[in-house]
Amino acid sequence: MQITAPYLLFVGDATDELSIKMAKGAADWRPELCVGEMNADGCTVTTGLPRMSIEEAVDKGAKTFVLGFANSGGVLETRWHPIILEAISKGMDVVSGLHDKLTSVPQLAEAAKQHKVQLLDIRHPESVFKTGTGLPRSGKRLLTVGTDCSVGKMYTSLSLERAMKQHGMDVDFRATGQCGILIAGQGVAIDCVVSDFISGATETLSPDNREAHWDIVEGQGSLSHPAFAGVSMGLLHGSQPDALVICHALNRSHMRGLPHTAFPSLEETIELNVAAAKLTNPDVKVVGITVNTSSVSVEEGRAYCDQVSKALSLPCVDPVRDGCDEIVHYLYKEFL
Amino acid sequence: MQITAPYLLFVGDATDELSIKMAKGAADWRPELCVGEMNADGCTVTTGLPRMSIEEAVDKGAKTFVLGFANSGGVLETRWHPIILEAISKGMDVVSGLHDKLTSVPQLAEAAKQHKVQLLDIRHPESVFKTGTGLPRSGKRLLTVGTDCSVGKMYTSLSLERAMKQHGMDVDFRATGQCGILIAGQGVAIDCVVSDFISGATETLSPDNREAHWDIVEGQGSLSHPAFAGVSMGLLHGSQPDALVICHALNRSHMRGLPHTAFPSLEETIELNVAAAKLTNPDVKVVGITVNTSSVSVEEGRAYCDQVSKALSLPCVDPVRDGCDEIVHYLYKEFL
Repeated sequence: MQITAPYLLFVGDATDELSIKMAKGAADWRPELCVGEMNADGCTVTTGLPRMSIEEAVDKGAKTFVLGFANSGGVLETRWHPIILEAISKGMDVVSGLHDKLTSVPQLAEAAKQHKVQLLDIRHPESVFKTGTGLPRSGKRLLTVGTDCSVGKMYTSLSLERAMKQHGMDVDFRATGQCGILIAGQGVAIDCVVSDFISGATETLSPDNREAHWDIVEGQGSLSHPAFAGVSMGLLHGSQPDALVICHALNRSHMRGLPHTAFPSLEETIELNVAAAKLTNPDVKVVGITVNTSSVSVEEGRAYCDQVSKALSLPCVDPVRDGCDEIVHYLYKEFL
Repeated sequence: MQITAPYLLFVGDATDELSIKMAKGAADWRPELCVGEMNADGCTVTTGLPRMSIEEAVDKGAKTFVLGFANSGGVLETRWHPIILEAISKGMDVVSGLHDKLTSVPQLAEAAKQHKVQLLDIRHPESVFKTGTGLPRSGKRLLTVGTDCSVGKMYTSLSLERAMKQHGMDVDFRATGQCGILIAGQGVAIDCVVSDFISGATETLSPDNREAHWDIVEGQGSLSHPAFAGVSMGLLHGSQPDALVICHALNRSHMRGLPHTAFPSLEETIELNVAAAKLTNPDVKVVGITVNTSSVSVEEGRAYCDQVSKALSLPCVDPVRDGCDEIVHYLYKEFL
C-alpha cells in the first residue's frame, strides 16, 4: 500500500481540534504533500492550510482525498458519501482512517472501479503477515516508547527523523498508526493487526537495511497500560531496537481512559522497556527522554526537563518546543 | 458462540499424532461429549474412540461434525467438501479450527442455510470486543503461563480444573485456543483477536463471578517468546490472575520454532510474569509449577520435579503423570 501525494485534507464539520488530528499531523509534518484543506458547513477548526474545493484541489494537482477527521466509533456517515463520490469522479484516490471501511460501501466501491482509483482503508492492514522470528536484521532501529498512550510518540519520532536528516543521517520514519501512515505515505496500523502477528508485522515494516541506516519506529500504547501493553510488547520485540527514546506527558495523574490506574515513573518505564527489549536486542540503550510540557509555561517545562536530564543522565527535551537535536547528538556519540 | 454436543470427530487422512491434536484433546478431556471418530482412507492415527460413519453418529445423537485435524497453512481442502456437505445434509453443525473459513465457501454456506445448521469457524472470533479497562472483577482467577509455547498450558489448565472439581471447588475452564474451545464448547481464540482488544477480550471471557468461584484461564505463548509475547502480555493483564501456574517442558534446548533463541529459566519466567501481572493484580501469587516430563522416564521426571519443588518452595508436578492435586492443596491453603 502506498498513498499517492499530494493530498486534499477533508476535515468535515469538526469543531474539536483533537478530532482532526490526522489532517493536522499531515499539515504539520508534511505540508509539501498537501495542496490544502476542505471543510463542510459548521466546521470551526482548521489545519491552517488554504481552503479549497475538490475542483480547485484537482487543478493544483491533488491525487488523494483524505478523510482527515475521526469520530467516536469511527463511523463513516452516509452524509459524506456524495463528497467522496465527487472526489472519486474527479479521479482521486480516497484515504480513510475510520473503522468503517470505504470498500464496504458498494456505491463507493463501484465508483472507484469505474474511475480506476483506489480506496485505501489505512486502519485495516491488507497484507498477510508471518509470525515473528526474532532474528537480528541489518541496519539500526530506534523505537519511541511511552509512559502512557497519547504522550507524543509520533511527534517525537517525526522530530527525531527531522533532526537526524538535518545531521545528514540516513533515516526513515516507520509508521504504525493511521496518522503516521498518512504522513509517511505507508506503514502498518499495528493495533489493527491480528495479535498472532504483532511482532511479525513489525519485522516486515522495518526490514534489513544498510548498516548505517536508522529506522525510527513509531511506538504505540505503553507497557504499563492494562489495555494496550500487548501491542507495545509485540512492537518492542519486532522492532528489536538498538535505541529507545522514552516519551512522557507532564501533569497526567492517571493512565489515559483509566482513572484507577496510576502513572508509572520514568525510571520504571525505562526498566520495563529495557528488560523486555533485551529479548531481541541485548545491546539496547536508552538515548533520551521527551516530554510534552504543553500544560506548563516554557520556563517550567525547561526546568522539568533539566531536572529529569540530571537525574537520569540522559538528554531530556520537549520535542515541539525544543526539537530533538540534543538526543541526536547523544545518539551519534553512543553509536559512532 | 456455543458448540452443541455430542461431537463426531473427523480426523481426515492424518498420519501424524500432532496434526489431530484438536480431536485428541476433546477425546482425552471430554469423552462424554464425543460419540466417536471418523477417518478417511490412509489415516494411520486415532483418538481411541470408536470409528463410525456420519450416519451411525447421527443415529447415536451426534449434533456437531468436528474437523479435528490441522495442516500447515490451515487450508480447508476442497476434497473434504463432499463429507462436510453430507454432515450438513444430516442436520449437523460443523466446527472448524482451520484458518480457511467454512463460511467463505459459498456451497457450504448455502447448504448450511438450507438445512438450518451452524458453521462455526472457532479460530475466527465473531464478537466485537472492547478495549480492556484493568478494573478488578469479582471472583478468583488462575492463569497458566509458560516458559515457551506448547509446553502443556492447556493440559495443565484442564488437569487443574479436574482436580479442583474433585475437591468440590466452584470452577470453570476458560478456553483461549481452538482445542480448548472445542473442549469447553465456548471461548475466544485469543491469538486471532485484533491486537487492540487482547486484554479486553480476555476480560469478557472471564467476567465477574461469585467470590469463591475460580476461572482457570488457558494461557497462550510465553512472555519470553519473540513472536508471541504480545499475546501473552495482553492475556496476563486481561485475566488479572490471583494465581499463576508456571508450565515447562523438559529437555528443550531452544524456543519453539526459533533455534537461535535460548530457553528462559523457571526463575526468570516467574519473575517476568509476576512483575507484569502486578499491573492489574498486585496480590498475584505463583502457586505451582507443571512440567511435561514425557521425554524422560517416570523416575527421572519425578526426580526433576522434586528438585524444582525444593529449589522454588512450590509444588511441582507432571500434570499428565501426577495430576494437579498437590497444586490444588497449595492453592487452597494460600487462598483460604
